[in-house]
Amino acid sequence: MQWYLVASLLTILTSSQGILTTLSKTNGRYRYDYATVPFLAEVFKLLVSSFLLWKEIPKSPPPKMTTDWKSVRLFPIPSIIYLIHNNVQFATLVYVDASTYQIMGNLKIVTTGILFRLFLRRKLSNLQWMAIVLLAVGTTMSQVKGCGEASCDSLFSSPIQGYMFGILSACLSALAGIYTEFLMKKNDDTLYWQNVQLYTFGAIFNMARLLLDDFRNEFEKGPWWQRLFNGYSFTTWLVVLNLGSTGLLVSWLMKYADNIVKVYSTSMAMPLTTVLSLFLFDFRPTLQLFLGIVVCMMSLQMYFAPPKQIHHDNFFLSGVQHSLSRRENI
Amino acid sequence: MQWYLVASLLTILTSSQGILTTLSKTNGRYRYDYATVPFLAEVFKLLVSSFLLWKEIPKSPPPKMTTDWKSVRLFPIPSIIYLIHNNVQFATLVYVDASTYQIMGNLKIVTTGILFRLFLRRKLSNLQWMAIVLLAVGTTMSQVKGCGEASCDSLFSSPIQGYMFGILSACLSALAGIYTEFLMKKNDDTLYWQNVQLYTFGAIFNMARLLLDDFRNEFEKGPWWQRLFNGYSFTTWLVVLNLGSTGLLVSWLMKYADNIVKVYSTSMAMPLTTVLSLFLFDFRPTLQLFLGIVVCMMSLQMYFAPPKQIHHDNFFLSGVQHSLSRRENI
Repeated sequence: MQWYLVASLLTILTSSQGILTTLSKTNGRYRYDYATVPFLAEVFKLLVSSFLLWKEIPKSPPPKMTTDWKSVRLFPIPSIIYLIHNNVQFATLVYVDASTYQIMGNLKIVTTGILFRLFLRRKLSNLQWMAIVLLAVGTTMSQVKGCGEASCDSLFSSPIQGYMFGILSACLSALAGIYTEFLMKKNDDTLYWQNVQLYTFGAIFNMARLLLDDFRNEFEKGPWWQRLFNGYSFTTWLVVLNLGSTGLLVSWLMKYADNIVKVYSTSMAMPLTTVLSLFLFDFRPTLQLFLGIVVCMMSLQMYFAPPKQIHHDNFFLSGVQHSLSRRENI
Repeated sequence: MQWYLVASLLTILTSSQGILTTLSKTNGRYRYDYATVPFLAEVFKLLVSSFLLWKEIPKSPPPKMTTDWKSVRLFPIPSIIYLIHNNVQFATLVYVDASTYQIMGNLKIVTTGILFRLFLRRKLSNLQWMAIVLLAVGTTMSQVKGCGEASCDSLFSSPIQGYMFGILSACLSALAGIYTEFLMKKNDDTLYWQNVQLYTFGAIFNMARLLLDDFRNEFEKGPWWQRLFNGYSFTTWLVVLNLGSTGLLVSWLMKYADNIVKVYSTSMAMPLTTVLSLFLFDFRPTLQLFLGIVVCMMSLQMYFAPPKQIHHDNFFLSGVQHSLSRRENI
């Protein structure tokens, strides 16, 4: 399978994730406990990966599986990083409002590039660095509040702690991705076995989180397993399936492509969501959204186009030029 | 003289043009007739160029000067294009507000690229095309109205005529530049003689405009020459000198560099003005201004950096990488 097909599929699923989540709300709010969604997605991913692994085991040669504890013990680490990340996220939101947090989230693109270079030792050309910075600028631009929008908290007016936590959050988020890529590529174990390990720990950590929430609320609403499917509609199940499938695609990309491909796939969901929203909802794009999309598209081209193509004279205008020259020669 | 020195000087003068014009206002309005400024700037440029030509004539070999009418008659054309452009500008402002007009003005960057390719037959790589589009996007971004700003007319709500005139205006403005470059480079006449022709017609057309304004106002305030220096302060004279010097630098760039260099020089005035405004005025930059500057800087690098540098692995992080590797080896 070509990586760009998987990447495109990830873009489509990421984009529909946003739209489905919006559709799953009833009168603007969730009628189900949103924290149960990632847990069920982990379970879904675990089931799919276990099934695929089970189908592969009788084959010859048998799939490579390292069951040594020294290897297995590395697989909860991404979950642990995400756990820390979630807490840093809460700490950040004490100091900054949600829209500033969302804007700062784009820093993740740049920190992923830096950790990708530092820890995975992957070379990036200056053009690719510029492309990464532009991708972050483009996604940020599309989120800039337009004139006349209600909330107008200045982005530069939060206390310094907010920005420090925001940067830490971007680093942790990037670290989890980079570490997963390292895990997936460190040996030639079959992807399904690696997934089974990853999602087993993922499910356990998500379960622990649900239980912790119950303790925090002093079991007011009863234990989580009793209200697991409360308020679930067909759309909610689609959200779960979508989130699970997204995770499986990311896993695949981590093994056969890399973190930067993943970052581009998910970032390109923004332009796609915009186009879909134009048709699905009564949506009027702002100038900044349009400009942001142009910048993201340029960035995509800069990062992935082969050097030869980049330095080639533009074809379309060469054609116009050519016909102009001919007209003069007549 | 190196072209990038002249280009940097043009950036500085363009930036100070905005600041000086602001400073020349008294209580937020001009106490002088602003239409007299371009006329005096043309006269200033004509005087300087005539003086330099006069100094060069006794030299051996004498400077090359084509005085054939077939050549001279081409020099009023830029002035004529500007005259048409001014009228299109007025027509555009009937349909769109001033800030939308300003935003559309950035289209000039792209139309300059297109005419540069079509009429001057200069090749541009795909990377350079992307750089040009990004420069237009960056300058536009920096002008996006922030939340809470007073005027909130939607950019996409003007009648279609407004956008058609806006595009025409951008094409005419680019055409004037491209035509001037063609004039300056079509033979190896000395720059000063070319300037003398250009500015003689420039002064005449500006004078005609002042006279036309007088006729329109039915000589209410008397003929223009009687009130030429009315309300002029020291700062107003600086504005005239600055505008004149800017014109001379542009002329030089048209002969020895090109239109794209000129576009970058004047666009880079925006980041410089921002930095100066931070110190000079009580100025708080918006997020979109900051993002716009980042995009413009990337564009500059993309357009002018040699291909080898563009595809080289980032030096700074290589250094960090190197010291990390060494640490591990200890």
